[in-house]
Amino acid sequence: MKLDVLLTPGELVPGEVAGRAIVVLDVLRATTSIVEALAAGARTLYPVATIEEAIGLAKTLGRDEVLLAGERKALPIEGFDLGNSPGDFTPERVGGKTIVMSTTNGTLALNAAAPGGRVLVGAWTNFQAVVDELARTQAEPVFLCAGRDRAFGLEDAVCAGQMAAALLKALPDAEWEMNDGAVAALALAEEFADPATLFPLTAAGRAIVEAGLGDDLAFCAQTDLREVVPVLEGRQIVLAAVEAES
Amino acid sequence: MKLDVLLTPGELVPGEVAGRAIVVLDVLRATTSIVEALAAGARTLYPVATIEEAIGLAKTLGRDEVLLAGERKALPIEGFDLGNSPGDFTPERVGGKTIVMSTTNGTLALNAAAPGGRVLVGAWTNFQAVVDELARTQAEPVFLCAGRDRAFGLEDAVCAGQMAAALLKALPDAEWEMNDGAVAALALAEEFADPATLFPLTAAGRAIVEAGLGDDLAFCAQTDLREVVPVLEGRQIVLAAVEAES
Repeated sequence: MKLDVLLTPGELVPGEVAGRAIVVLDVLRATTSIVEALAAGARTLYPVATIEEAIGLAKTLGRDEVLLAGERKALPIEGFDLGNSPGDFTPERVGGKTIVMSTTNGTLALNAAAPGGRVLVGAWTNFQAVVDELARTQAEPVFLCAGRDRAFGLEDAVCAGQMAAALLKALPDAEWEMNDGAVAALALAEEFADPATLFPLTAAGRAIVEAGLGDDLAFCAQTDLREVVPVLEGRQIVLAAVEAES
Repeated sequence: MKLDVLLTPGELVPGEVAGRAIVVLDVLRATTSIVEALAAGARTLYPVATIEEAIGLAKTLGRDEVLLAGERKALPIEGFDLGNSPGDFTPERVGGKTIVMSTTNGTLALNAAAPGGRVLVGAWTNFQAVVDELARTQAEPVFLCAGRDRAFGLEDAVCAGQMAAALLKALPDAEWEMNDGAVAALALAEEFADPATLFPLTAAGRAIVEAGLGDDLAFCAQTDLREVVPVLEGRQIVLAAVEAES
């Protein structure tokens, strides 16, 4: 079985990942926030590229019906209801709601992955749920690291490597064919085991601390806080209908 | 001082590396072959993107005056004088000659880097010469990993990490500011210390073996075989005029 890690979003060629399970990782913070939103009972979440697109979609859906969320340079967007701090996506604020989200890297990567295979949203906070889902479906995964402004982000690569290592353990009889990115991510996952120690070493982590949002790092480091797997269906992210497929 | 590693060529933004020393690495095999060509006394080498461009430039310069070199899918190009096996670039064949070279990844990366800062050609075969040149000029280096079809290539990242580690040792009093790619490359350099052991694990290494050119891997693993630093000047690669600058 194939197991690939794309260390930067520019490596994605949609035609080459058709039929694969694509796990999008932007653990600081977009995919962690999306996991929180869906775990907190949000009905659906639309990831969009630009602020204009977010506002336009909110108008189409009815501005009072949606929550606008997202960030630019780590900070909340003016006029939006929520930023990109995962702790803000509480059941009180987002339960039953439709969310339209635009972030610098994560939503771009989600939309880039959309024309490929089945797209899953991964983070440390739903680590085991993603691994279990990949093991259950015997998928040939592609871990897509969203990175930062199209550049490599270490935290996403380490999360990918740790998920890959867990999947290898979960399916001990599988014969894996890995790309260079997967070999590297497995090595990085051993080197940087603890996300709480890793985050302050990364450019994304430092930018979040500089924006005064350092508490978000501790939040994003909570392994297995949730047991949900958000998936992209059409243009929307919803919870994986695990039962229906098993 | 800044020290950056770009793990994939798509991360290069020429405007962001202006004034920096850009070390292009495509150790399997383009940059190793270029080091051999210049060490063997080739007068100059033009890296070009396409076969058509190579043939056109050879006509302009005079077909009898130049050697055409390069590969597609690891194999020599029909009608060309040399492939991309570094051992072919002997003093007997290339001494005093002008070479026009087109390879799948390396020459693309060289041309992408050209509008940025000063471009150096690096490989394991001229490892210490590159590190010495960076230390001597107190340059803020950007290591550009050419990779493979725009995807990550592990061997280039490991070479970048080892060069970065050697530079850190050579300038122990410098305060370095590193991007995530540099932090990852340093970790990978420790994990995969020996290029001869590493190469068979990589996609590029496997492709070269499958093409029947396995001897090239042993050649490219020869650390410090040469003491030259090829640099890009305009459209041509020549030997760095070390004396004139010191």
